[in-house]
Amino acid sequence: MTDSISFFQNPEDTREEMLEATFYALRRHGYADLTISKIGNELGKSQSVIYYHYENKDELLVDLLDYMLEQVENQVPPPSKSPEEYIKIIIDEIFGSNSNSVRVSQVVIELRAQAAHNDDYTRLFRKSDSLIQSQIARTIQAGVDEGVFDVDDTSQTAALFHTVLIGIQAEQITSDDKTIDHVKDEFQRYVEQCLFSE
Amino acid sequence: MTDSISFFQNPEDTREEMLEATFYALRRHGYADLTISKIGNELGKSQSVIYYHYENKDELLVDLLDYMLEQVENQVPPPSKSPEEYIKIIIDEIFGSNSNSVRVSQVVIELRAQAAHNDDYTRLFRKSDSLIQSQIARTIQAGVDEGVFDVDDTSQTAALFHTVLIGIQAEQITSDDKTIDHVKDEFQRYVEQCLFSE
Repeated sequence: MTDSISFFQNPEDTREEMLEATFYALRRHGYADLTISKIGNELGKSQSVIYYHYENKDELLVDLLDYMLEQVENQVPPPSKSPEEYIKIIIDEIFGSNSNSVRVSQVVIELRAQAAHNDDYTRLFRKSDSLIQSQIARTIQAGVDEGVFDVDDTSQTAALFHTVLIGIQAEQITSDDKTIDHVKDEFQRYVEQCLFSE
Repeated sequence: MTDSISFFQNPEDTREEMLEATFYALRRHGYADLTISKIGNELGKSQSVIYYHYENKDELLVDLLDYMLEQVENQVPPPSKSPEEYIKIIIDEIFGSNSNSVRVSQVVIELRAQAAHNDDYTRLFRKSDSLIQSQIARTIQAGVDEGVFDVDDTSQTAALFHTVLIGIQAEQITSDDKTIDHVKDEFQRYVEQCLFSE
């Protein structure tokens, strides 16, 4: 299995190369110890290349977050799936515990923590959170329309899905796979009893 | 309403005073910009006082985390409460959205993110996570024993409670109260349908 993050498989331009290097440098050093110089090392180029495009570390990290958000936006559900199949895919995404998804989670939680101190992070996370919640709510609504799901307030249900997604992202930093599997089993029990029609 | 965090109401010794100052300095500046000198300013004393007790910032933060964990351990459920009443208290704690609990959440998530880079944080979070999960599982088990709850695997149910707790801690950094209330309503629907006996 490849060790690289899927959305950086083939960086297409200088921006993507810099963002990929930023991702790995953040993963390696953490936000507090991250410097433009360390990102330059990861990129294998002089830090002046980075300063040509970005003023400082936060400007670069906010662009990384924006880029990761674009990737999520582009993950449009394949039109051939039924609501039940698509809910299953969403649950698998929430609890995805391969090494790639754990790396992404760590980076995302570290950036989310910065939102307490920087409004640019807050703005992007709000945009991303509301986008993910509407995608989930739309899927549940499609199931309600087809009579497969019985849910009164789809945005309320989507809000809990989203909280569990973020909780798992934060838990993956310290938990083992067994704990995550445990949570997944209980979440599936909730979906069975609170989403599906009798 | 007081603006200070409840477990620092009356710091009893130098350690508690230093930990209180560390908490507020972390809240104000964030992990990355936190220095012993800034903690000294918050404490109103020279930084040499702090260096007399702690070697560096991380040693002090790990002690803060340890202290906060002790406080959680001491919050033993009042023996007079029934399992239903105690589950309600747990849910209110998870979704507590007053300004104090939001401040604590921000600090806790920022420290949890450090676990990706420092094993001392990982060790303490694992201890704290497992403690909170067993407390919740015990409450649910008491309800099962009394015939109020119908749950097969109480530790599995407690694991989802805990994930939602951490998810809310992370979401509170960027979300408004309305979103948190939405999640709470759906979580209560889950508790009604998946915990209580028919």
